[in-house]
Amino acid sequence: MFQSFDTTSDPSQGPARLAALRAQLSSAKLDGFIIPRADAHQGEYVAAHDERLQWLTGFTGSAGFCCALQNDAGVFIDGRYRTQVKSQVDLEQFTPVPWPETSLVDWLKTQCSNGAEIGFDPWLMTKGQLEAHENALNGTDITLRACANLVDIIWDDQPAPPLTSAFAYSIEYSGKSSPDKRRDCAADLVEKNENAAVITLPDSLCWLLNIRGSDVSKTPLVHGFAILNDDARVQLFIAPSKVEALGPDPSIDIMPPEDFLPTLSKLTGKVRCDKTSVPVAVIDALNASDAEISYGVDPCALPKARKNPVEIAGTRAAHITDATAVCELLCWLDQQPANTTSEIDVVTQLEQRRRATNALQDISFDTISGAGPNGAIMHYRVTHETSRTLQDGDLLVLDSGGQYLNGTTDITRTIAIGEVGHEERTAFTRVLQGMIAISRMRWPKGLAGRDIEAVGRVPLWLAGQDFDHGIGHGVGHFLGVHEGPQRLSRVSNVPLETGMILSNEPGYYREGAFGIRIENLLVVQPAKALEGSDAHRQMLDFETLTYVPIDRRLILSDMLNQQELDWMNSYHAACLSKLSGLLSEDAQNWLENATQPL
Amino acid sequence: MFQSFDTTSDPSQGPARLAALRAQLSSAKLDGFIIPRADAHQGEYVAAHDERLQWLTGFTGSAGFCCALQNDAGVFIDGRYRTQVKSQVDLEQFTPVPWPETSLVDWLKTQCSNGAEIGFDPWLMTKGQLEAHENALNGTDITLRACANLVDIIWDDQPAPPLTSAFAYSIEYSGKSSPDKRRDCAADLVEKNENAAVITLPDSLCWLLNIRGSDVSKTPLVHGFAILNDDARVQLFIAPSKVEALGPDPSIDIMPPEDFLPTLSKLTGKVRCDKTSVPVAVIDALNASDAEISYGVDPCALPKARKNPVEIAGTRAAHITDATAVCELLCWLDQQPANTTSEIDVVTQLEQRRRATNALQDISFDTISGAGPNGAIMHYRVTHETSRTLQDGDLLVLDSGGQYLNGTTDITRTIAIGEVGHEERTAFTRVLQGMIAISRMRWPKGLAGRDIEAVGRVPLWLAGQDFDHGIGHGVGHFLGVHEGPQRLSRVSNVPLETGMILSNEPGYYREGAFGIRIENLLVVQPAKALEGSDAHRQMLDFETLTYVPIDRRLILSDMLNQQELDWMNSYHAACLSKLSGLLSEDAQNWLENATQPL
Repeated sequence: MFQSFDTTSDPSQGPARLAALRAQLSSAKLDGFIIPRADAHQGEYVAAHDERLQWLTGFTGSAGFCCALQNDAGVFIDGRYRTQVKSQVDLEQFTPVPWPETSLVDWLKTQCSNGAEIGFDPWLMTKGQLEAHENALNGTDITLRACANLVDIIWDDQPAPPLTSAFAYSIEYSGKSSPDKRRDCAADLVEKNENAAVITLPDSLCWLLNIRGSDVSKTPLVHGFAILNDDARVQLFIAPSKVEALGPDPSIDIMPPEDFLPTLSKLTGKVRCDKTSVPVAVIDALNASDAEISYGVDPCALPKARKNPVEIAGTRAAHITDATAVCELLCWLDQQPANTTSEIDVVTQLEQRRRATNALQDISFDTISGAGPNGAIMHYRVTHETSRTLQDGDLLVLDSGGQYLNGTTDITRTIAIGEVGHEERTAFTRVLQGMIAISRMRWPKGLAGRDIEAVGRVPLWLAGQDFDHGIGHGVGHFLGVHEGPQRLSRVSNVPLETGMILSNEPGYYREGAFGIRIENLLVVQPAKALEGSDAHRQMLDFETLTYVPIDRRLILSDMLNQQELDWMNSYHAACLSKLSGLLSEDAQNWLENATQPL
Repeated sequence: MFQSFDTTSDPSQGPARLAALRAQLSSAKLDGFIIPRADAHQGEYVAAHDERLQWLTGFTGSAGFCCALQNDAGVFIDGRYRTQVKSQVDLEQFTPVPWPETSLVDWLKTQCSNGAEIGFDPWLMTKGQLEAHENALNGTDITLRACANLVDIIWDDQPAPPLTSAFAYSIEYSGKSSPDKRRDCAADLVEKNENAAVITLPDSLCWLLNIRGSDVSKTPLVHGFAILNDDARVQLFIAPSKVEALGPDPSIDIMPPEDFLPTLSKLTGKVRCDKTSVPVAVIDALNASDAEISYGVDPCALPKARKNPVEIAGTRAAHITDATAVCELLCWLDQQPANTTSEIDVVTQLEQRRRATNALQDISFDTISGAGPNGAIMHYRVTHETSRTLQDGDLLVLDSGGQYLNGTTDITRTIAIGEVGHEERTAFTRVLQGMIAISRMRWPKGLAGRDIEAVGRVPLWLAGQDFDHGIGHGVGHFLGVHEGPQRLSRVSNVPLETGMILSNEPGYYREGAFGIRIENLLVVQPAKALEGSDAHRQMLDFETLTYVPIDRRLILSDMLNQQELDWMNSYHAACLSKLSGLLSEDAQNWLENATQPL
């Protein structure tokens, strides 16, 4: 199994570790130290080597940070983790801080005396994060100071950084050679009069060099740093053993990671850095060099986000593969008698069916399998302690995805267990209406996620309801399942462009009662001209990538207007047509039933 | 008549005036001078004294500017005026520049040699505008230099600044006394540790002091400057004769306008200035003083935008008054035989009917009356030269409004003349669907215009169509018909709040063929809780203020879904109920017919 259901946290060791850290604070003459849940590559998944936050505090969430002072230690956690943190950390030693409502600086102002110096590891904080903290500290006497990582000093059995072998990612999947990608990104540098760009995001590195690896779970990443030069040459800073199997490339200089900072300090000319991802350590090295820093967007970010036709075709195929597994699971689930199946059973059975495709490389994230009130926990992770037996009347929120060589998937279905109440079905239908509205959208080229996201919320809003997450995130190609810069979110101003893949996943959550989420992946494409459409306007729309039936038992079809009904029936007809013949006999029967017209 | 239909421009005098201006450039040792269409109060309507752009160039548009160099003179005009400018300026002497596509600085870079100095009148440019120009000039050798207004020097018969008498605006209409407003705005200063605020916007001044006047047409403004102090005292800089009739107020010091800069230069402490409205001349005076400038929002802006219950009740009543005039006009129009009525006739008849209410103080802007292809010109101003006779099959776009003591109105209806084609009716119905979608909206408190505006465009977008203006602007209370800061626009991030009035006016324009626009005014209100709505979410929605039937002959009711049909029928029922008994017998019959259920 890729997924585990253990409760991996134990609050008992935190106090001793915190005491050791405080001794380090004293010898470093610091008043505090920041421990983010981050590595130098700002990834969503971190290697065991980088699980400092969990090691120190016990908290296992996927976001947050600790700030340890001599008299207090704040654990900053967002709304998802307010309950979880209480069982994972020793509350006598650690104070959960609601974040981002309370910022690090807000908290420091109430906790620190004048002149306090707070240390941080400059590899684990981006330039953008540091600037935001420093702006907020303006007018106070509190300062931040880069220093060695104090947790690494006291963590005796800290695992080594990952050293897995990278493998070449074939052009059959990537659709474009690495030299071609490097040439185009270098041309972008030349156009902006820049001489080089620093690349610290591993998804950018893997995309640019057409390599993949397994330095972290769930995402096929290789950790390393690179400098892309305006002549398209690359200096790659990585343990040589990791890339041995790739063979030599005359336009790539492989150098050990310890050469990265010395090389940066010898750079000259204009060097592009993306302050949203580049660590402070890199900026400090460049500031001490003769180079001039040019802040801008990672040169790989947009070309990587705009998938090429080969990547899109691969992603379509990966979704069909994935859909067969999900349909087999849904068929199996419908056959289980009430009160016999647990949330964990569903996860296990689903992973088995994905593995049975013989194409699965990894799951793309831990499957969220939440029934009844657990479905209302947006980022629920089922453990042996929490796993609920599915009961008559439950809604099951099942959010999962796979990593396939030809693409990354992410799908959520909400399933009726037995007879579900009217309130749940009403809310489900509204969420579906929002999801259909986004699926059917067509909009003038140039707009960003924030310009169209509301359209997917209107059916809930009109009923006085809403949900507290964005409608969609960007998705990578056999890379991160959360990979921007595009998003379908009120805060995203990145224009949507042809080839960008996004999730479309409105939801609704009634705390302590039930949750609903419906998610398909979409890819942006030029919209076909219609009769009477404005000839001078370029319009975009979405192609749907995900084809798995949506639970008809939860749809109140009287609430749907004709366009919504038409979309729904045509979507189900497409599911039937694309998946027929690829399923077991049982699942084929299930599919035919599940896709009947409304 | 408040409105005239004369072609007020004459290109013949421009060359001589430009030559005189160039002589001034030489003696001032300047390479150019900027002539905006602006006064020191940044108003949409300017007094004759401030019509410098028109006097110099002949161009009469309501936005734009000229930059006169020795060898060229650019007239910067936006998309609305591309055609008009060509007939209004001498094209041998003046070069129309498409703006904002080409910025002032873009143009200067191509026209000026190194070291060029461009003069500007520091009263006519805001600090924000200057900063934007200077940022764009960064890295060039071109500089901007504040100087005396060179046009005023050569304009022999320049009209004097307006000196009309201000009148007290009764609390019966304003709903809140001036001392109370001043106290609340002063409290806002105290809360932000500011000692004073500079007020240069006349709508802010009029609102704060509960006065109105007639310094410009269409908007009942009094021009003046003020300093609001943190103890709620006000220094008002205005010709004393203008405020004589108001009588003395011990908490207001009246001083002549020429004392404004000397007073500013003696200020101390923190002084709030809104850089989007405060002229450079004011900032320069403060910079030379011991005061510290605190950039922020005009303290009157938000309280003025959030109308109080008395203002809202007055506005409701003003809309009913206005609606009777519009219905009388529409009834009359329907009785005219084809090919007998001109666009100007419609304007004249409408103004007569508004005057017949005995409540009209002014029209709130020049009525847009555009038939056939003229309807596709978004800001069309009908003149004797352009006035079209309404023809069978035309759509007439009629966009107009009135200033009443109890409120300001703005309404657009698109009227079928004879038998209108299917394409026009289809587009009309889509525009209507967008307008209904905004009218029916309900959204979580905290969102801004940009977060919800798309909802009013979706029906057009799905047909590959769109329009090139925002859906709505803010509206003042017996003040500016365009008065923010709130807007229903993709670029507005001002959260919508209870009491804010907005227009809802989607449109569609087919160049050379026809135009469509449907506009009601709306006021933001707390939404009533619904059964099943989220108890913890505060939601807002709109109350409609405008009640005039929408032309049923243009609605393809098959395209409307049930909610849209219900809204439409209930809107028409409300029109019938609110206006019945207030109309002539003819118009009452017309109303009953026009509001029949679909």
